[in-house]
Parts: sequence; structure tokens; C-alpha cells
Amino acid sequence: MTPHLKLVSFDICPYVERSRIVLLEKGLPHELELIQLSSKPAWFLEVSPMGRVPVLLVDGRAVFESMVINELLNELQPDPPLFPRDPIARAEGRSWIVFANDVVMPVGGAAMLALAAGAQGEALATRLGALREAFGKLERQLARGDGPYFLGRDFSLVDASYAPFFRRWRLAESWGSPAAHVLASFPKVSAWVEAMLQRRSVASAEPVELDAKSRRFYAERAARARAAATAT
Amino acid sequence: MTPHLKLVSFDICPYVERSRIVLLEKGLPHELELIQLSSKPAWFLEVSPMGRVPVLLVDGRAVFESMVINELLNELQPDPPLFPRDPIARAEGRSWIVFANDVVMPVGGAAMLALAAGAQGEALATRLGALREAFGKLERQLARGDGPYFLGRDFSLVDASYAPFFRRWRLAESWGSPAAHVLASFPKVSAWVEAMLQRRSVASAEPVELDAKSRRFYAERAARARAAATAT
Repeated sequence: MTPHLKLVSFDICPYVERSRIVLLEKGLPHELELIQLSSKPAWFLEVSPMGRVPVLLVDGRAVFESMVINELLNELQPDPPLFPRDPIARAEGRSWIVFANDVVMPVGGAAMLALAAGAQGEALATRLGALREAFGKLERQLARGDGPYFLGRDFSLVDASYAPFFRRWRLAESWGSPAAHVLASFPKVSAWVEAMLQRRSVASAEPVELDAKSRRFYAERAARARAAATAT
Repeated sequence: MTPHLKLVSFDICPYVERSRIVLLEKGLPHELELIQLSSKPAWFLEVSPMGRVPVLLVDGRAVFESMVINELLNELQPDPPLFPRDPIARAEGRSWIVFANDVVMPVGGAAMLALAAGAQGEALATRLGALREAFGKLERQLARGDGPYFLGRDFSLVDASYAPFFRRWRLAESWGSPAAHVLASFPKVSAWVEAMLQRRSVASAEPVELDAKSRRFYAERAARARAAATAT
């Protein structure tokens, strides 16, 4: 029997979207509770020691961090399997999810912030350069396989972990200068992004008005950063 | 048949030590290759897209990030099991490993750097305060169970993930002012640390001359930070 699942979320959070994709792949019924990042309720801080979303409440027990939540969902509902059976291949997949968490998403977030702030010249070039370097590593890894997904023929937790970022990055490329059109130089990454975004679960997990809300989110962050810099 | 395992490491790295503890718990034969962080060889950058240790080469295939490596070792050699059978309990354990990665170790590293740099007053107090907050969260979680280990009676991957940090932090408390004696205010955390460090695998994984080498490591980092601050 599947336990009661409640996913605690913030409106356009890409980390939460990873888990929504997995819930949709698995057809798992679940409740979604939205909170405001600007005023986190006390019950939320009680179950989320890092103060972050997503948190999954499983019969009231708190599981946090999207990678951990997704592994659990894959174990609770094994069908369809979202990881290879071979433990070494599974570990390689997990390694590349950490690469998304620790490299692609922070580097991509910094680039989106720069674009939303209207950065130009070297400030923008540095951030886009770092993102190009990360995309280059994905391109090389993808060149070792046949696609269409990261680990091959089957959609996996690796794809679920990258799709929300690339959905946002494709939007961000149109925010600023043509210099931001980074993705087109990476044919394997581009084809992979296309395959992921066409997948039904991924398409269904798209937040409404994502482009406008993302622009606003990053523009507000950029304004706060400017205010903080002026205050010092 | 167990594949050939080679763990790529840097002398006193706490992340590598996590995997060494697991290898010792499992009795898995393995090769250890030390590299210099200051001059990373080309073959290493080829297998480690983030340029970090540990990397585990499994019959030549690269698996990176200590949490991922430890999950794999636990799967390759299921005996003794280092995670609970219940998937929800396992997910809770993984969540607390992420808390180690994303909170305790960075916050603790900043505090150790401050101590090694001889920081005083508010600069030190801020860092120790952040560490106290993190320890408080561990204390509350430990109070929910009976110990001696984080998930209860059995040593697990959660303990393997925290032990290297706490081994270093206990040394660091003696580097500076008595203000650094933070651990004693957390009785549950202290008892847990004691239980972990007495465990045979954990004791055996202790790097030689750890105290002197750690001091030197952080003192050099502090000197570089001072030089960079002067240059700007």
C-alpha cells in the first residue's frame, strides 16, 4: 500500500519540479502544498532542517532534498523503473545528478541572474563561459551513448533532474543579448533537451506562466543584490 | 564477483575518509591512489568532471561524490547492510547525509578556517554560532531515537558520513580559544560522536598525523585568503 504523500513546494522551484516529474512518471497520487519562500511557516521549518523545498511528507515523516525524494519514489513504486538494474550504471547516473546539483544548476542560476540584471561585457561573459564549460562536459558524456536520454533508451532520474533546469535555461536565452544563445553550440545536449521536454511527464510538470514568473524572480533577486551592494 | 576498485584520494580529505570507512566495514579489497590537490593530473580531471575527490574507479568506470560511492559499495557488497531495509527510513537517512554535505561540513569548515586563522571576537562568534545551530538540529534529531548510532542500534552510511567531520572538529576545538569548545553543550551529539569514533572501521580510517596536517591545511588556506584580500 502506498503511503500518503504530500510534496511541500514553492511555486516555480526547479527542484520541486524534479519530484513532480517523477510522481507523474509513476502515476503516484499525492497532495501538493505551496508555501511562500519569503515567509516560511513554523511547521515547515520544523520538518525542513535546511529550510528548503522540496520536502516530501510520507505518512507525516519528512524526507528532504530532491535527489533523496526521487530515489524514494522510485523505490516505493518500482514501475516504471527510473534507474538501471546494474548497480554501477545506477551509480554513474547518481554521479551525474550530483553534477546537476553542484555545477549545472548553480552556474546556470548565476547566468540567469546576470541576464535578468541586464549584465553586459565581461560580467556576462564570465558567467556564460562557466555554463559553456559545464555544457561541454555533458556533451562529452552524451557522446559516449546513443540517447535519446542521458543513460540511453530509457527515461531516468537523471533526466528528471536536468529537465527543469533546461526548461528554464531555454527561456532565459531569449531574455538578453544573442550572446546568451549558448545551447545551440552543443548538438548532443540540444537533442537531449528536446527529447526530455517532449516527454509527457516533463511537459505536464511545467509551472503556469513560468517565463514571466522566472523573469520576475531573477529581476527581484538582482535588485536585492544591487541594494545590498549599495548599502555596503 | 567484486569488480576492481580504485579509490582516488587526497591525503587528509574527509570525504574520501567516508568511503574508506565503508570499504573497511565491508571488508572490500581496494587500491588507494593519492593525488596532489595543488597539481591535479590530467587523467584525474578526465574521470572527475568536478575536479574533486573521491572518485571510485570500478573496473575503470568513474563514480564520483562520496554519497554516491558509498551507496554503490553498500549495493555491491550487501553484508553487513549499512542502511535500513525500510525505504522510508533509508530516505530519512539519506536526507541527513545531505544535511552533513550542505550544512554541517561547510559551516564546520568555515569555523575551522577561522580558528586556524586565529580569528577572535565577532568574526569567530558568527562562525561558531552557525555551527551551534547545526549541532542543535542534530541534537534534536538524535533525541528522537535511542542511539548509539544516528539511525539507532546499527552503524549506517549516515554515521560514515559524519564521523570524519567530527574527528576533525574535536581536534579543532583545541586549536583556539575555549570559546571553540562547542561540542560539550550537546550531550546527545557528544555521545554519538564517541560511539562513532570508537568503532573499529572509523578508528582504522584515521589518517596519520591528522592534527598537524589539518592545522597546516587550514593555516595555508587562511594565509591565501589574507593574501587575496590584500591584493584586492
